Formats: sequence, structure tokens, C-alpha cells
Amino acid sequence: MEEKRILLQKQIKHYLCWNEKTHAKTPNNSPTPRTTTLSPGRRQTECDNLSLISVPRQNPKQQSNASHHYSVTGTAPDGMRQPLPHFRRNRLLQRSPFSNPACNHPTVNKHQHQQTQQAANPRNKFDFRTYMLEKINIVNQALDAALPLQNPIKIHEAMRYSLLSGGKRICPIVCLAACQLVGGDESTAMPSACALEMIHAMSLMHDDLPCMDNDDLRRGRPSNHVVFGENVTVLAGYALLARAFEHIADSTRGVSPEKIVRVIGELARLIGPEGVVAGQVADLRCGGQGRRLDIGLEQLEYIHLHKTAASVEASAVAGAVLGGACGEEIERLRKYSRCAGLMFQVVDDILDVTKSSEELGKTSGKDLVADKVTYPKLIGIDKSKKYAQKLNREAQEQLNGFDPEKAAPLIALADYIAHRQK
Amino acid sequence: MEEKRILLQKQIKHYLCWNEKTHAKTPNNSPTPRTTTLSPGRRQTECDNLSLISVPRQNPKQQSNASHHYSVTGTAPDGMRQPLPHFRRNRLLQRSPFSNPACNHPTVNKHQHQQTQQAANPRNKFDFRTYMLEKINIVNQALDAALPLQNPIKIHEAMRYSLLSGGKRICPIVCLAACQLVGGDESTAMPSACALEMIHAMSLMHDDLPCMDNDDLRRGRPSNHVVFGENVTVLAGYALLARAFEHIADSTRGVSPEKIVRVIGELARLIGPEGVVAGQVADLRCGGQGRRLDIGLEQLEYIHLHKTAASVEASAVAGAVLGGACGEEIERLRKYSRCAGLMFQVVDDILDVTKSSEELGKTSGKDLVADKVTYPKLIGIDKSKKYAQKLNREAQEQLNGFDPEKAAPLIALADYIAHRQK
Repeated sequence: MEEKRILLQKQIKHYLCWNEKTHAKTPNNSPTPRTTTLSPGRRQTECDNLSLISVPRQNPKQQSNASHHYSVTGTAPDGMRQPLPHFRRNRLLQRSPFSNPACNHPTVNKHQHQQTQQAANPRNKFDFRTYMLEKINIVNQALDAALPLQNPIKIHEAMRYSLLSGGKRICPIVCLAACQLVGGDESTAMPSACALEMIHAMSLMHDDLPCMDNDDLRRGRPSNHVVFGENVTVLAGYALLARAFEHIADSTRGVSPEKIVRVIGELARLIGPEGVVAGQVADLRCGGQGRRLDIGLEQLEYIHLHKTAASVEASAVAGAVLGGACGEEIERLRKYSRCAGLMFQVVDDILDVTKSSEELGKTSGKDLVADKVTYPKLIGIDKSKKYAQKLNREAQEQLNGFDPEKAAPLIALADYIAHRQK
Repeated sequence: MEEKRILLQKQIKHYLCWNEKTHAKTPNNSPTPRTTTLSPGRRQTECDNLSLISVPRQNPKQQSNASHHYSVTGTAPDGMRQPLPHFRRNRLLQRSPFSNPACNHPTVNKHQHQQTQQAANPRNKFDFRTYMLEKINIVNQALDAALPLQNPIKIHEAMRYSLLSGGKRICPIVCLAACQLVGGDESTAMPSACALEMIHAMSLMHDDLPCMDNDDLRRGRPSNHVVFGENVTVLAGYALLARAFEHIADSTRGVSPEKIVRVIGELARLIGPEGVVAGQVADLRCGGQGRRLDIGLEQLEYIHLHKTAASVEASAVAGAVLGGACGEEIERLRKYSRCAGLMFQVVDDILDVTKSSEELGKTSGKDLVADKVTYPKLIGIDKSKKYAQKLNREAQEQLNGFDPEKAAPLIALADYIAHRQK
């Protein structure tokens, strides 16, 4: 515990040193983006504040489509580029969304097999990994531009610290993919995609506060309040939320103001007291902090549909509206995203009890220890697996009738969520 | 301290008992609004969760225009209608915005005299007290409707607890007045007016958190986190912010979506990291929590212009845009609100050192004790008073050229801010 504390202090010092250096170097107080080339064979890079988590696959034979070099564009803190402390490097490895993607996993079920057969046809070929890496990079660049480091420095620093610290960027990517699926242009949906990530970052910052989950680490770095203090984190959180709506209102181009108003309304509703917050509060009361409370399947689904799926729903609906979808298309994408979001949680529950900590890349059995109500606990592992498969089928069904090429990212994303092994 | 703790516990118990009763009585879990008539001569009523703080004047001779009965519409907690504990009743009295309004104060300076002369002409007559009471009532009813008590109960309860607990409603009233000043309809601006109050409530809830000002009382009642817990308060805060934007987007009628988008953009910017939050962070770093730091006039103005004036600015600009103001009109109202907001703080600083606690209705000399940098500390009391007068003149000048009858509420509001005695 003492060692961990000392390590945290060192990391904070490094971070602050970097900021001082950056401010001294750049007159406009904005860190200069730079490009770094990583050598092949390096499995994971230190990428705090970088734009891309690059993860060449473990087995070189599997690297057929992946480029050996990844261009990493972002803001790289000098002080943070030193070798990582052991526990921190491990956490980064564990957090990678693609370190062992399910789509490449040897265990292929019937549905995956169909996908593989489709992939044999060049017209159907879709490289999910490359797509995701490309989109993560684009989103990170847009986020960097949407929230430049400006006066007052401290609050922007705190906001950027959490916003640009990596992450899967699932919500922004769903937003962009939904927009393109219905024929819209990616750039139209980008401000909303960034706003979704700002809201996600705010949510994580608040989740980590001592009065919430009291977590001092996030994505392998000290949590926001550990670096900036609780008071600044609370302010930075709601500043991110305000900036999210400002960004949609001020930066969305190429669509009618009517659509922008609708997107703001939908997004605000889905993250508010009838959406994400509803799930968070229900979770707090039903074991979110380790208390044992007997809740049923219905309540559990309520929590996950609100706490997790509502954000994905907001992403899909925002993208669809901005892309010019008709009412039916919007509702189908809404259903897709609710199924995908709920499935994410069901699979998470299954992995917690079926995988070792080593396989999982994080502490397994956490839900058991916390005596949390989960799907395996309520209906057993087999039924939970079947339920996840059902949700995946339902999600995929919503995409029938759309252009298969444009639907490929969302199909692959659902499959990735269903079959992930960690 | 122990007594205070016990009183707090009693009040929380009362509040929770009321909620249980209410939920048991109403199938839809929404407390039924009801009308209560207060007898004349009662100076202040217990009005937790009520819509109106009714404060007939102390001297019956002064009650010429005021009705003897006030209709109070709102949700009245049964358990809270018992006589108040002494310290709490005092706080309620102290907080009243009109218990001794400056417009009726015997000390009349030159400017006030001019206003009085104008009032002698029936065409110029404007009853500020009646206007404010009427608007507070309308705003409270709109707030009650904008955030009904619905599932999930707990988070809505927490949001409503702070939102409907009284307050001056300055921002919503500025918003409505600005809209009407430029020829708009009040109903068009009402959703934005409510949103501004939601944001204000969120800001106060977060300000009271232990990691911020650590205040366990607000408007004479236990602070939000004392009743609901810190974690729920953090969530309720950002739920209020989300609901604010949802409400503007979904409920604004009678204007083009383009104007709604502009209002959302302006409002989000002015409460975000370049607006209110910027001021709050600067204040935290410059003595907001009692630390002595030598800052100059420029920094002090920066804090107040952002922390306080930016909310008033957002209110005036939102109202003006929705009312159909032209660019020049918007900018004049922006300047008016910035002057009025800054003046509020200058006067606050002066009162802190010139009035006794008894006169002030709250602890005087707090800034001195906290060693806070204030206007009297930096430039002296006389210069501070002259500066307040200058700001009032500048604010009033912005209203020249508008229809004097429609400008009357904003003229009177600036005068009230300038000449208030507590």
C-alpha cells in the first residue's frame, strides 16, 4: 500500500513536470502534437495522453493484415515516457481492447463461423481491428482539438487529463458508424461523437471519487482527483458535461438545426435521471458498493439497460439522426444499441466467474467477493451464455436490410462484444 | 455542534417521513400540488419545497400595494410544517430577498431619488416587489412541472429537494425579463429560465459538498448531501445539468430551432470551463477556502465576472435570443448583465465590512476572518461604493432606447442590487 502510494506520487510529479515543460515551450499553452513510430513486435506501448493504443497481435502469423508500424499522433508527456512501474504496465496491458480480440480467437461458434465464411468473399471482407484503430485515432485527434489546453489552465488540464487518457472510444465509434450506416457523413457526427466521450470521461471521473467507488487508479494512471484534488475533479466533471453540449451546438455542420436540437434532447435524456444516472443510482442501492441486496432479474436488467446501454443508445441514435435516418431506422439502431449494451454486461458477468485473473487480465471473481447480483448468480452460467447469444442475434437482426458493407462495423462490434475473452 | 447535529437529523427524518407519506398517498408517486393561504401579518412561512417565499412587509403602513394573502402553490411536506427550530427559522428570515428591499429603504441616494420622481408619474410606476413575487411564483410552478417526482424516486427526490427549496430566482427572472424586453413571449423563454435555475441548483449542491465548501446547511435546510449522501448528490448534480439541456431542447416552443441551438451553445459556454467553472476554480486557488493569496484587482474581477456574472449573462442572452433580439440588443443586454452581476459582488463585499451581523442577517466580517481578497480590501470602502455606483450607471445605460415600460423590471433589478442593505 505504501509502495503504491509512493508510485502514485511519482507519477503525479512526472505529470505535473511535463505540464510545466509544455507550458514553458508553447506560447499558446497547448502541447504540440507529435508523431511517434513504434517498432514491430512491441506488444503494448506506454501511451498516456496518446491517441492510439497500438497492439500488434501476439502471434506473428496472425499479423497478415495488420501494419507493422503504427502512426501514433497525440500529446505525449515527456515525463511519462520512461519505463512504467510494473503494476502500471500490467494494468495497461490488461486494459487493451484488442490484445486478444474475440474475432481472432480459435474457439469459433456457429455464428462466428458464418462470419468467417462471409469474410472469405472479398466483397464481404471487413477488418475490424484496422477499422477500430483508425477510428480511435480519428476520434482522439478530434477530442484533442475540441478541448485545447487554454486558460484557465488548471481546469482544462484536469478535463484533458481524463479525456485524452486512452480508452476504447466505443460510444464515439458507434455514433460515427450509425451516421455512416444511414448515408451520413462522418464529419457531421464527429462533434456529437466527441461530446459522448466527454460525458463518458466525466462519468468515470465522478465514479472514481472517494464518495463513489473511491478508486485511485484509472486506465493505469492516478485517478483525476488524486492528481487535481476532489474539488477540481467535481468542477472538471460538470465542465466536461457543459462543454459536451456546447460542442454539439456550436460545431455540428451540414445538418438542420432541428436535427441538432433533437440530438441534444435525446442525448441529455439518455444520460440524465431517466437514463445513465437512473442506472447508477439503482446500482448504488443494489450492491454497487458491495452491499448484499436481493434483487431480481428485472431490476438487474434495469440497472444495466440504464447504466451501460443508455450511453450506447444515445450514441447510435445521435449518429442515426445526424446521418438522416428515418424513424424506423432510428428505432432499429436504438434496439441494436440496447441489445449490444446489455450484452456487454452479461458477458462481463460471465467472464468474471469463468476466467482466471490471468486470462481475464484483471481480478476475476470480483463480483463474487463483493456479493454482487449478476446474471450467472441469478440464472446460472449456461443460461447466461444463451442469453448473451440471444442478445447478439437480436442486435444483428436490427441491421438486416441496411447496406451490408456499411453495416459491417456494427455487426463486427456486436460480435466482438459477444465473444470477447477478457 | 452536537445540538446542531441532532436538529439536522430531526429535519432529515421529517423530510423522509413526508416523502414516504406522499408516495403512499399518490399512486404515481408524485406529490399533489396544493394551495395554501397564509394569514396576513405572518412575516415568514415555513416553505420547504413550496413555490413561494411570502414576506409581507414589517411595517403594515408600507403594505399599500401588496396583497394581504399570498397564494402558495407547491408541494408541502407535512412533517415540515411544524414550527421550525430556532436557528433554522432565523436562517429562513435572513435569506429572504425582500424582507427589507432597498427600493423601500429610507436611505435614498441621488439615483434612487430620480427613480422615486419617475415613479410619481403614473406612467412610470413600477412595483418591483409585486413583479418579483409574481415571477417567483410562476417560475416555481414551471420548475415543479419541469421536474416531476417520478421513477427512479431517489434521484428525482434529491434533484427536487434542492431545486424547489426557495431562492431568489434571479437568473430565471432576468431571462424572462430580457425576452419580454425585446418583444418576445414569456412562455418562449420559460424552459430556458427553468434550465438556468436547474444549473444554479446543481452549482449550489456541489458547492456544499465536503470536498468543496463543506456546508451542511443551505437555505435553512440540511444540504443535499446531508440528506441524500454525497454520492447521490454528485449524481443528482449532473442529472440536473443534463435535464437542463434536455428541457431547453424538448420544451422550447414558438421559436426557430436555430435560436434554440444558439441558446444552448451560449448557455453551455457561459457555465462551462470558460465561464462559471473558470471563476470557481480561480476562486478556489485565490482564497476561496480561506487561504491567503495576494491577488490584484484584475484577478478579483476575473473571478466575479466568471463565477457570478456569467450566469446572469447567460440568462439575459438566452432571453434576448429567444425574444428575437437583434445582435446589438443582445450585446447591450450582455453588458447590462455583466455589470449587474459584478455589482452584486462588489456590494456584497461592502456589506460584509460595513454592516453588523444583525443588520446583515448573516455573519458579517466573514471575508475578513477568511482573509479573503475583496474590493474594500484592495481599493477601500469609498472607492468600492463609487465603483458599485459606476457599474449601476453602466448597467442602466444599456437599457436606454428600449421601451421604458418593458425595461422597468431590469432597471429596478439593477437598482435593487445596487442599494440592497443585506
